[in-house]
Order: sequence, then C-alpha cells, then structure tokens
Amino acid sequence: MDIIVLKPEATEDDIRHVVKKLEGKGLKAHVSKGTERTIIGVIGDTSRISEDEENAIRAIESVESVTRIIKPYKLASREFKKEQTVIKVKDREIGGKKVVVIAGPCAVENKTILMSIAEKVKEAGASFLRGGAFKPRTSPYSFQGLGVEGLKILAEARQITGLPVVTEIMDPRDMELVLEYSDIIQIGARNMQNFRLLLEVGQCDKPVLLKRGLSATIKEWLMAAEYILSKGNENVILCERGIRTFETATRNTLDLSAVPLLKELTHLPVVVDPSHGVGKWNLVIPMARAAVAAGADGLLIEVHTNPEEALSDGEQSLKPSLFKDLMEQIKPIAEAVGREV
Amino acid sequence: MDIIVLKPEATEDDIRHVVKKLEGKGLKAHVSKGTERTIIGVIGDTSRISEDEENAIRAIESVESVTRIIKPYKLASREFKKEQTVIKVKDREIGGKKVVVIAGPCAVENKTILMSIAEKVKEAGASFLRGGAFKPRTSPYSFQGLGVEGLKILAEARQITGLPVVTEIMDPRDMELVLEYSDIIQIGARNMQNFRLLLEVGQCDKPVLLKRGLSATIKEWLMAAEYILSKGNENVILCERGIRTFETATRNTLDLSAVPLLKELTHLPVVVDPSHGVGKWNLVIPMARAAVAAGADGLLIEVHTNPEEALSDGEQSLKPSLFKDLMEQIKPIAEAVGREV
Amino acid sequence: MDIIVLKPEATEDDIRHVVKKLEGKGLKAHVSKGTERTIIGVIGDTSRISEDEENAIRAIESVESVTRIIKPYKLASREFKKEQTVIKVKDREIGGKKVVVIAGPCAVENKTILMSIAEKVKEAGASFLRGGAFKPRTSPYSFQGLGVEGLKILAEARQITGLPVVTEIMDPRDMELVLEYSDIIQIGARNMQNFRLLLEVGQCDKPVLLKRGLSATIKEWLMAAEYILSKGNENVILCERGIRTFETATRNTLDLSAVPLLKELTHLPVVVDPSHGVGKWNLVIPMARAAVAAGADGLLIEVHTNPEEALSDGEQSLKPSLFKDLMEQIKPIAEAVGREV
Amino acid sequence: MDIIVLKPEATEDDIRHVVKKLEGKGLKAHVSKGTERTIIGVIGDTSRISEDEENAIRAIESVESVTRIIKPYKLASREFKKEQTVIKVKDREIGGKKVVVIAGPCAVENKTILMSIAEKVKEAGASFLRGGAFKPRTSPYSFQGLGVEGLKILAEARQITGLPVVTEIMDPRDMELVLEYSDIIQIGARNMQNFRLLLEVGQCDKPVLLKRGLSATIKEWLMAAEYILSKGNENVILCERGIRTFETATRNTLDLSAVPLLKELTHLPVVVDPSHGVGKWNLVIPMARAAVAAGADGLLIEVHTNPEEALSDGEQSLKPSLFKDLMEQIKPIAEAVGREV
Repeated sequence: MDIIVLKPEATEDDIRHVVKKLEGKGLKAHVSKGTERTIIGVIGDTSRISEDEENAIRAIESVESVTRIIKPYKLASREFKKEQTVIKVKDREIGGKKVVVIAGPCAVENKTILMSIAEKVKEAGASFLRGGAFKPRTSPYSFQGLGVEGLKILAEARQITGLPVVTEIMDPRDMELVLEYSDIIQIGARNMQNFRLLLEVGQCDKPVLLKRGLSATIKEWLMAAEYILSKGNENVILCERGIRTFETATRNTLDLSAVPLLKELTHLPVVVDPSHGVGKWNLVIPMARAAVAAGADGLLIEVHTNPEEALSDGEQSLKPSLFKDLMEQIKPIAEAVGREV
Repeated sequence: MDIIVLKPEATEDDIRHVVKKLEGKGLKAHVSKGTERTIIGVIGDTSRISEDEENAIRAIESVESVTRIIKPYKLASREFKKEQTVIKVKDREIGGKKVVVIAGPCAVENKTILMSIAEKVKEAGASFLRGGAFKPRTSPYSFQGLGVEGLKILAEARQITGLPVVTEIMDPRDMELVLEYSDIIQIGARNMQNFRLLLEVGQCDKPVLLKRGLSATIKEWLMAAEYILSKGNENVILCERGIRTFETATRNTLDLSAVPLLKELTHLPVVVDPSHGVGKWNLVIPMARAAVAAGADGLLIEVHTNPEEALSDGEQSLKPSLFKDLMEQIKPIAEAVGREV
Repeated sequence: MDIIVLKPEATEDDIRHVVKKLEGKGLKAHVSKGTERTIIGVIGDTSRISEDEENAIRAIESVESVTRIIKPYKLASREFKKEQTVIKVKDREIGGKKVVVIAGPCAVENKTILMSIAEKVKEAGASFLRGGAFKPRTSPYSFQGLGVEGLKILAEARQITGLPVVTEIMDPRDMELVLEYSDIIQIGARNMQNFRLLLEVGQCDKPVLLKRGLSATIKEWLMAAEYILSKGNENVILCERGIRTFETATRNTLDLSAVPLLKELTHLPVVVDPSHGVGKWNLVIPMARAAVAAGADGLLIEVHTNPEEALSDGEQSLKPSLFKDLMEQIKPIAEAVGREV
Repeated sequence: MDIIVLKPEATEDDIRHVVKKLEGKGLKAHVSKGTERTIIGVIGDTSRISEDEENAIRAIESVESVTRIIKPYKLASREFKKEQTVIKVKDREIGGKKVVVIAGPCAVENKTILMSIAEKVKEAGASFLRGGAFKPRTSPYSFQGLGVEGLKILAEARQITGLPVVTEIMDPRDMELVLEYSDIIQIGARNMQNFRLLLEVGQCDKPVLLKRGLSATIKEWLMAAEYILSKGNENVILCERGIRTFETATRNTLDLSAVPLLKELTHLPVVVDPSHGVGKWNLVIPMARAAVAAGADGLLIEVHTNPEEALSDGEQSLKPSLFKDLMEQIKPIAEAVGREV
C-alpha cells in the first residue's frame, strides 16, 4: 500500500484526477480528507507499481508527496526468505557459525609475492585468498593490475594452499576469464551500480561478493543484490567497506551499524572490509574486532609481506605478523557472540 | 614536489630509511628537522611518482603523512592547456560564447512521444536532443530503456529536427551501436568510475559528456576525464548533476560552485543538469538561471509532454510550456554574463 | 494525519494495542489491512501529537515506521502565512523588490579598518554593514573578537555611514549589549540549534538573521526559525551559507537550491552568504550572481581592505574593488529576475 | 613547520612578498623552486602562527595552498601528554581498566519513573546514572525537560542508588545549578561548538562529557576539548554518538573508527553512545558490543521502563530486561580486549 498526500490547495477535480489514474492501473483509492490535507491510500497489489509509475504520480501538480510502504526489494528480503542464506564454497561456508576470513594483497603483483602472502595468511587461519587481477584505479597512470596473468597466479596459489580465491571483475567482457580462475567473484564499490555487470554475474554459478558503493544507501545496496538474485544467482555476499562522509581523518567511515541492520532486513551473509573502511593499517585490528562483535559473518583483510613496496593500498595493508595478531584477537570476540573463527 | 612528515618519535634510522627509498626512485630528499617533527621535501620529477608509490610511502611506520603538491591530472588541467576547449558538433559549439541547451525526455519511450518532445524543444530553442535508450535504474523491475530500438528513434528524431543527439552508454559492448546513432556519448553518474567504459569512449571520435558521480570529488571527476583524455579523445564535457549529501528535501544537492572552480582548474566545458540536481520540476527553472549566472557553458534539461505518464523521472521533467519559460528566463541572465542563448 | 505501518508479523492484539494508544490521545485510528502489512491512518488533530509522542509510537515493537504528514513547523510555513514577509529596518526592506547587500569584514578589528571598509562598501552600494564583535572560532587560540569595544566601533560606523548594522550574538548573557548596538542580530551557523539563544532573540524587537547550520536540513532550519517565531519575533531572515559535504575543494557546499525551495515552504526572506559558502574569494562573485539568479532576497559578503592582514577569514574576503565589481555584476541579474539592487 | 605552495604563475616579486610577510612574524622562509611550482617551507616556532594568520596567508593572490604540519590542538594531544587520562568520580574511574556504563532515560520525566529506572540500571551493573533535565529539542513544541525540578530528582536518585549523575547543560546561565546537582556535566552534540559554554565548563571542577557534533570532524572535536582544557579543566571525556551522513536507515552513522583513532591522537577517555548513534533500540546491543571491541572506555545507554510512553527518544531506549542482556553480552567482549565491565 502506498500513501499519496495532496497539496493543501488540491481541489475535488485534483482528487478525482489522481483516483482515476490509480483505477486505470487496476488499483483502488481510499480517500481521507483531513482538516489540512487530503490523503489517498492506494489499495491493491501495489508491488506491481514500478518506481517509475510512482515517480509519475509525483509529477502530478496537486501531489505533495508519495510514500512507498512496501520494500522495493523482494528476493533479498527477510520476508521473502526467513532462514539465513549459507553459501558453500568447496568445504567452506559463508553465513554459517564460522566467521570466515578472506585475506590477501590488494593486487596480485607477481607470483613470488602472492605465494608468500598466501602461505602466510593460510598459516594464520584465513579461509579464502583475495587478490586483484583487474584493479579499478582513480588514476589512469596507476598500476591497473596484471590481468589474465594475475588470474593465473591466483589459481596457482589456490592449488598450492587449497584456499579458494576471491577476485574482482570490472568488465562484462572478462566474465568467462574470471569464472575460469576464481571461486567467488567480487563486485567492487565503484561498480555496485554497474547494472550490466550485475546482470552478468547474476547469470553465473559462482557466489558474488557485492561491495557497498561509496555513497550507496542500504536500500540501494539491497536493490543491487536484487539485480543479481533476479537473474537466478542466489549466492550473494554483502560486504560493508565504509561510506563516504565529511570526515577525512579516515579513508572512509566504516558503517558497522549496517551489519545488525542487514541481519534484520535480509537473509544474505554480511562481511566487513575494515582495511578499506579505515584506510590505515594501525586501525584495522580494532575495527576487525568490532565487526565481529557487531555480528559480521566474515572479514576481508588486506595483507602484504612488504606494504612499503606494495603496488597498491600499502598504507592499509597488514604485515603477516599483524594479521596473525588479528586472527588471535578476533577469536575470543567470535566466541563471545556464539561464533567461531 | 611532495612533502613527507615523519612522526615525532622518528629516529635517525627512520629518516635514512625514507631518504634511501626516495633515492632508489631517482629522487632527492631535502630533510628539515623542526623542533617537533622532521619533514622531508622530495625534489625531482615527482610527477613520475604514482599514487601507488605515494601510498607505499604512507605505509612506512615512521611516516605520519604525505602531501602531494602536484595535481594528479595533467591533460585535463588549465596548466597543461590554457585556452578553453571548444567542442564542435556539426554547426554547434560547446564551450563557446553560446550557452547550449540539451533537452529531451529522460528515456526514449516510443516514436510518437519522442518526436513530439523533440519538435517542442527545438521550437523553444534547444540546441541538442537528449534521451536514454539504455537506462541505469536502481531497481531491476523498472523500465530499462528500449535499447537499439530507442537509438533508432533518436536518430530519426535527429533527421527530422536537425538536433544532434546525446545518449548514454552503460556497457562497453554497446560501443559500436551507440557510436552509430549518437552525436555525443553520455557517461552517467553511476558510471563515472567505470574505468573500462572510460577507456573505451576515450578511443572513439565522438565527444563525451561525463556526468559527475554522486559522491565524486572534483579531483576524482577530473581524474575520470583524464582517463578519457589519456586515450586520445580530447572532447570531454563535464556535467554537474548534484551530489549526495545529508539533505533529502531535494533529490541531490546541486553543487554550482563546481562551475567557477572548474573554470579555474580545467579547460574543458562545463554544463549543468538541474533536473537531476534537484529532482523536482518546480525548482528546475530557478536553478537553470543560477547555473547560467555561475558561468555554465550549457544546460541539460529533462522535458516531457506528459510527465504524469513518463516511464522515468516524471517528477523532475518540465512540460514544454515550462521549458519555453526556462529558455526565456535564461536569456537575460546569459547576456548579463556576456553570453548568449 | 499520520501513517503508522505495522510489521508483517503484527497480530490482532498488536493492532488493538496501537489503536487503544491513539484513542487514549483523543485520536481516531483508521485500520487498513493489506496483503503484506497493516497500516493505521491517524485521524483527528494530529498537530497536537508532539514529536515525542510520535517517537514513543515508534518504540512499540510491532511498529515498523511512522510517517508524519503534517509539517512540524507552523508559524514559519507558507500555509500559515501566504504573503511574503518584508522586514523593515529603518528605511530599508528585506524581502521586498530590492536585493539587499550586507557587506563588511568578518570581524571588527579596529576603528580605522572598519571605517575604511564601511565607507567603501557604502560607496559601492551595500545596504547594511556586517562585522563580528563576538567571534565563534574553532580554536581557543584564535582571535575571539573585540567584544563590547567592537560593538561600539560598529555603532560609530553606522552613525557615520548611515548603514544599519548586522552583528552576531553567541551568548544569551550578551543580549542587552548586542541589542543596544545592532540593527539586525545574527545567529551563526554553529548556534542554529542553540535553543536557549533562539528563545532569547525570539523575545527581542530586532530582526534576526538565522544562518543555516553546517549539517542542518531545511526542516531543522525552519524549526529553528519556529523557535524564534514562537516567542513573538516575526522578523526572521534565513541565511544559506553552505553545508558540510564530502567535497573539500570548497570550504562548504553552497546549497542554492535551498533558495527556491524555501520560497515555496516559507514566507520568510532568504539571503545567501557566498563568502562562507565557498571559502575562496575568487569564487565569491560568480556564486553571488547565481544566488541572485536563484531568487535570493539578499547577499552577505565579506569585504576587507587588506585580506592578507585580516584577523579572520582573509582567504574568502573581497577587496573593495572586487566588491564593486560584484555590485556591478549582480545588477543585470537582479533585473533579469524582476528585482533591483 | 608549515608549507606554502605558490601558484605556477608566481613571480620573483610574489615570492619576496611572502618571504617578507613571514619574516615580519619572526619566522624564516625556506624557498624551494621546483620545475612546476615554488614551495616555501616555514621554519621557526610556527605554533605561534594562529589559524587566522594562516588564512591571511591563503588570501595572498600568488598563494595556491597552505598546509599546516603541526596539530592545532596541544593540551588534548598524545604528544603533550603520553599517559592515558583516568578521571576519578567518587570511587569510580573513567579511562581505567573497567569499561564504565552510564545508563538512564533520555529525559527525567518524574520521580517515580526515574527512581524505577535508576534501580534497574544499578541492579544490572551500570556505574553512572544519566538523565536530562534541560533538553535541546528540534521543535519548540516538544517537551523541554523539567529543569531544576529534574536536577533535584536526579540528585535524589543518586542519594538512594549511590550512582553518580551525568546531566546536560545548555546555557551558561544554568552553570551553578547544574554544578550543584551533577557529578559529570554533559555538553550535547548541538552545543559542541557553543564556545561560550565550553569556556564556562572549562572553569569548573567537575568532569565534562563532550559529545561529538553531528558534523564535527575529529579535529574540530579535539579543538572543542582544547577550549575546555585551555581553561584549566583537565577532565574531559569524549563521547562518539554518530555523525550525520547520507544514510537515513539509521538515525546517525556511528563512527566507531573514531575510537581507535582517538586512542592514538589523544590521552582523553573515549566513550560511545550507541543509542543516539543508531536511533533504534534493536540495534543498540550489537553496536554496544562493537564499541567495547573497538576499545571504548565506556558506554552511554538510554534505558526506559516504558519506552512507549517515554517523553523523548522512546524509539531508541532499551527496556531494563534488554539492558541487562546488554550488560551480560559486553562482559566477554570486554575480557577479550583485556578490560572488565
């Protein structure tokens, strides 16, 4: 049901005009005349009214506002699916009792470095290996990733360590390639509303890790998930990675309240990326602890054996020894909230 | 030249470590020891230092901050090219004395409606016709545009009215198609950092209208333009269309100060889209006037013959009669700032 | 009328509980059971329901959301008073046909400087003199204003130039003093929700220039005006001065769309302060033009004879010669929108 | 040391002009001419340069930017005082090993309700009682607090329960009154930059709980603390309570990364208010856990025996049974980070 509020100066003709419009869409109008304004309740299956039709109603001169009561996403909502989605990747589960840790470098730089990092994060207890082969960079003059070569190195690391691999896709034309080499496909923050890419990954059979856009509301984020779900791929993992605010002391503002809120609104697993969230290596560990305490199903952590020489995001990467500390520190927190690491 | 500030506790060894790192990159370090902190000025061609290397320096434990002095964009900057870029499309110019008006519906809905709108906006004095064939929509259940069919209708409208056509591209795979039917290619706000798409349009021979991302800084926006310029396409038009802020009384917050600021920083033409900027048809005309007064080279205006039935953005579309008013009202403003409409 | 939406799992008991609560407040409940949710329309004089009671309804476990239809401000609204408020200060009017210009230094520094600036701005056509005697400064170590001494200098400048004086109050304890020396009392952005101060100026007989808070919504701003109006002072001038956003290229983001929006929502005059809005002297003139084009009733401009030696806000102050340019440039814009300077 | 960058077109005369200006302030200038720009390093005791003088340098036409290296706050910084400040209130400590919990209603409504809440929170393990007697409310028509009567009720509750009392001050004229009845004085978010109030509480001998402003940067917040410290009151407690962002799904965005960041920058204790931070009672417990995991020294929690009848903030208040749950749940988290509750 939707609520249409008319302007104070709306006439009887204006009311009839709106009512007729609704009836033309097969809906019923319930008119309530208050002392200050007339309000029209829309009765019937309003889920069939698209956002476009809603906006068209807003375009009517006598209309002051239109309030949508029904949520615009369906498949992603808890109402549609009550039980928590648990995503299986090989022998691992995301969304289950275990808090999963996905760790690795921002970008795959070369085989030696990646192997070394992969071994270290595995040793410390990570469940997945992350690493970018295609990198979305603010500057055209920055390192753009190794491409296919990077994907191959990732696959090799997986073979040796047994860690399934998470990597980003930026272009629908790379779909086949990325599918071949990765276990979970990442959609980066800047592509959260690259709708063509969403439709593409919605049609594949690999889980998708969907990062929240820099200025995406929770609703828009769930709508982006809905794009993927609507194409048949039910395995979407939401990843909070900080939003853009006025505060510049941290790279982004990590919105941890999104975690318990999403637990209410959706059945999809929620992981947190404190590395991008704060952008400073020395704040990553406390925020990883906080994410687990807030109820996150997993963490995405940037680790590099030599951050000072990293080709990207060195300032927010943990050295392996600090990553080991992180793993130690989140253990009792996970237990405190009835989970395990 | 860059400025590296060390933490107060930095030792002589720490200083030597940073200096050596810089020398390894072929740069010189100028060390100034203050009473509270040591500061290292980097001398040499620091434009060769990538953002990545800068971040890697931030990763050094003894480093407190790194300040970049040089601007990260080059081809887009006024320093690189002093004279204003004027883009020629058929017999029209963007960035010249005339304030150009690009008008039309949000989306191409069908031939009859588009033709009718096209005739009306031409009559009122618009120089270009806008209309989306591929539409980025928040919901997978909203109207996604007519696709190729929409492009063909646009091309037909161009033939009849003589108005060159501006339309959006969302997917690099549509490149050939969009090039065939449009005169100016639009990159939407949600794709401002779809870097693959930017590289693609950077290689074509049509001008690109680059909308500012919802939460893009001026610097990031110019870096996105740099992506296009770096591939050889010199014809980039910047389009301010509102940024996302805490204020919800308007759809976005139209950042008009971006106009005079960009006039300082870049040689590229700047146009303003007040329709998306405010999201309410009744605020479009005053904001169009303000944009021209602030020095904009053009306007992007959504017009629909029947906003109440529009398939998208009806609430912010002007009826043709109001669009005519807009054209009348911006005329004396344009003259007041030494321009013409 | 308000709209209460219940959670999908709400039972008949839950519905009865809410209905009873409303009836206890003397209101009627109109229950509509949809396929997915139950919605309760609140009928009766809901203007008597305070924000607090609204929030208390939100606290009920079965309630999903409460939407207020009625505006929370009354005296400030166009519905309450249709005709534009025109404020008379001596022989001048704010909110009338003339676009008024209030100009002067950020802070009163000493008599010689203020006199010199006052003469210059009068000569160029300013209608009011601005200048701070009490200065809210981010740092306790910054210049805090001359206090009473500053007020006296302002009064002297008024006597010599005939320009009425606008100055800021920061503390209710200074009320008597500020009233004695000024013609319009300014409430600064940081004090927009200093409710005790608002109540105080609401009881005086001088007009109040109420600056928008850095992160105040339009609604909160009008509620702050309502505080003043509710105490009997009808002469409130709203001043847009930029809001805080993620963009750091300008000091604030000047929200000019607030001007036409406020013209719809309220009868109070609206002026714009582009100096604080952008924070850079070289952007002030184009934004002053844009403000007038958007429909502002006036401008607040910082002017200093020697910005390089100004004790505050030097970076955004215009030299007198540039202020004269500004006055020249806004003249044809004002005429274009049916006003005069 | 500060860094002044000149515009590319700066001449030798421009350089001399800046150098002379610095020398006039008793400082030395170190000029480095790069290939693209000239940079002037300022040598000497730049801590004596006020923000105003810095801005005045920005006003020089040939100056492109001024970067401050030194932090603008001193007394609040870790550099000034290395050891953590531990504030003693009766037999309790804030900033020590124990994570303190300050709980109670938003506003004191009457004696019966307050007593009942006070008993319950004490029983559950709270260390302090909170409650507002003076309430800053968005609307002049909302409940504004009981005033003196409320203070007296608080004092009575303290006597019976032994819980020290935290209450807000809004007006410097209430100073004596609030001092008489409270143990910790709260400065609310909307008054964080009410500088007169800050100076006032800086002169008293009670600890001050300083809430972060809705749109205050970490730096501005520490500068507000500096106002208090500079007047001699060393007992300032910082309270993160959420910042205003574009996201409306929660009341504010709780910025938990502020906690570990502040632990680096300042020696002052940091507490977190998740009730205001999220604004929804059902998200308070997970965010309380997260705050403790992030390293907070304490929590501020709104508790009400009957949120549905609360006179303010009912929607974010916990019932006593849920507050008890909260206390249980934070215990193992506190232990996990080496603290206790």
